[in-house]
Amino acid sequence: MISNSTKPGEFAFIAALAKQAAHTPEALGLGDDGAVLWLGDGRKLVLVADMLQAGVHTMKGASAAQIASKALRTNLSDLAAMGAEPAFYLSTICWPGAPDEHEMSILVETLENEQKQFNLSLIGGDTICGQGPLTISMTVLGWASGPLLRRVGAQIGDDVWVSGIIGDGWLGLGVAQGNITSLDTNDADYLLGRYEYPEPRLALGKRLAPLAHCALDVSDGLIADAKHLARAGDCCLHLDYEHIPLSNAARHWLSVQNNQKTAINALMENGDDYELLFTAAVDQGQRIDEISHDLGLDLTRIGRVIKGQGVMLGTPDGAVQPAKHSGFTHF
Amino acid sequence: MISNSTKPGEFAFIAALAKQAAHTPEALGLGDDGAVLWLGDGRKLVLVADMLQAGVHTMKGASAAQIASKALRTNLSDLAAMGAEPAFYLSTICWPGAPDEHEMSILVETLENEQKQFNLSLIGGDTICGQGPLTISMTVLGWASGPLLRRVGAQIGDDVWVSGIIGDGWLGLGVAQGNITSLDTNDADYLLGRYEYPEPRLALGKRLAPLAHCALDVSDGLIADAKHLARAGDCCLHLDYEHIPLSNAARHWLSVQNNQKTAINALMENGDDYELLFTAAVDQGQRIDEISHDLGLDLTRIGRVIKGQGVMLGTPDGAVQPAKHSGFTHF
Repeated sequence: MISNSTKPGEFAFIAALAKQAAHTPEALGLGDDGAVLWLGDGRKLVLVADMLQAGVHTMKGASAAQIASKALRTNLSDLAAMGAEPAFYLSTICWPGAPDEHEMSILVETLENEQKQFNLSLIGGDTICGQGPLTISMTVLGWASGPLLRRVGAQIGDDVWVSGIIGDGWLGLGVAQGNITSLDTNDADYLLGRYEYPEPRLALGKRLAPLAHCALDVSDGLIADAKHLARAGDCCLHLDYEHIPLSNAARHWLSVQNNQKTAINALMENGDDYELLFTAAVDQGQRIDEISHDLGLDLTRIGRVIKGQGVMLGTPDGAVQPAKHSGFTHF
Repeated sequence: MISNSTKPGEFAFIAALAKQAAHTPEALGLGDDGAVLWLGDGRKLVLVADMLQAGVHTMKGASAAQIASKALRTNLSDLAAMGAEPAFYLSTICWPGAPDEHEMSILVETLENEQKQFNLSLIGGDTICGQGPLTISMTVLGWASGPLLRRVGAQIGDDVWVSGIIGDGWLGLGVAQGNITSLDTNDADYLLGRYEYPEPRLALGKRLAPLAHCALDVSDGLIADAKHLARAGDCCLHLDYEHIPLSNAARHWLSVQNNQKTAINALMENGDDYELLFTAAVDQGQRIDEISHDLGLDLTRIGRVIKGQGVMLGTPDGAVQPAKHSGFTHF
């Protein structure tokens, strides 16, 4: 309906809803990754919702378990982006016709494993049998006891950081769709796994909450999401091509592309990475490196916050250009 | 996924999920109309979720606004059944292909009106463009400050009550589907309205919370839902045919049916009434009559709680028979 993870083409629709929600502090203007209820006991309850359909966010023919797992993980990524810890979820599912009993039992087993891994519990939902592809919607609730990470807050002079690796999600989709065939089995399997089972950066989000100035999860594409932070902070994010963290599989793919710049752009322009993009004061660099070490997770300084608007891309040859791509949109 | 408004054919799936949820008090065993978070400040946050798809719960070709309105109202009916007051909602929507701008603007306007009428605010969600019919999922949150109405709690000797009128929802579906053509325009329009825009009994739920022993909203059909209360309370609900409250439009329809008993059974066996079914001690009768008067809403004593299991139906000729129908199920 609205989108807490905003997609540009949906702006007219969301803007109208956001106008209605302007007097509801809990909605955070529908511009963040989630909503927040401030409870009387000092805790904050963070709520996020996402919907996935077979063939839209996943390769056609994905099982209910795969789609449910991805729906849960993308929601958990939104919680991570706000510095919240998962607690509960509600799930609604529309089966295409009568569901297969075997598929249902795998779904139950998968949810059980995911719940254990991410420490959250199913508390409600709904099941219908309908038409069209399998469609799953999840609302996930998490607790934030410390400061809340939000999209707003970037400061001129901040470093821009990103967790993990960028571009694998999109390459994984290409593998799933059969569009990328130049890679060996190891690379292809790795990328597919990254696409199908994104790793929500929950521990990172919790550690960043007290020190990062702003954050979101990369779900629309690095550049589009950097633009969201720039817009929320009324500033410009200057990103450096050569610092974007890429996997070995991505480098193998890059090595057979004709136009390197176009290829790297594609990795930065497409979504589904579910890494955290955040900015922090320069003097937090050492603490961020410590967090990286503690979590065994690469955290890479990929740029800085400057005056201006939008996103600028700096290339190794010293040239700078405004980023134009606005990311994945459903409309 | 699971269902807080349980449908019999989904039992194997739900039972497996409920087993997982058994150690989560907030899930209420996935057997109630919603889930509950007990907050440190003494309040209870009630959460309900429902999914609707064009052509499944509404007539084919229903607009996004109609489906959203019904999705919101059926969720609010679940809140009413637990004695909670609406506060917030998150909504996810899957448009079939690119949505029509006009349809989007009507949806926004409709949501605005519904939000005002029911005193709740949109705080989050997601929008995707996919395949298949329009599909909307909503998670609605409400506050309960007093006792919580639940399905469990019926006591032997209780009166069984129902609000409003039974059977109109199913007749309205028949009108929408073109299966019922014997009625005049007034009756047909009335029934259609009852089907498309159910009236969540929020004020009633709040008033009942301190005095009713158990409650749920009639969404699977009066008999199926009475069975839910009987199962939760380990007792039998004895309902009297002649006390089931029917509308004039339903009586007009009945008057041209060949078999009256079969016809009344059909009205009791089919869902979508969204009235509250509850039991209360006999000595609460006067207070319940007062509530009925205060709210301008009929509350009808339709039976009593006896020892045994399931639902028994008493007919005007003194005969009693067990009710067999188990209500609407998606599986």
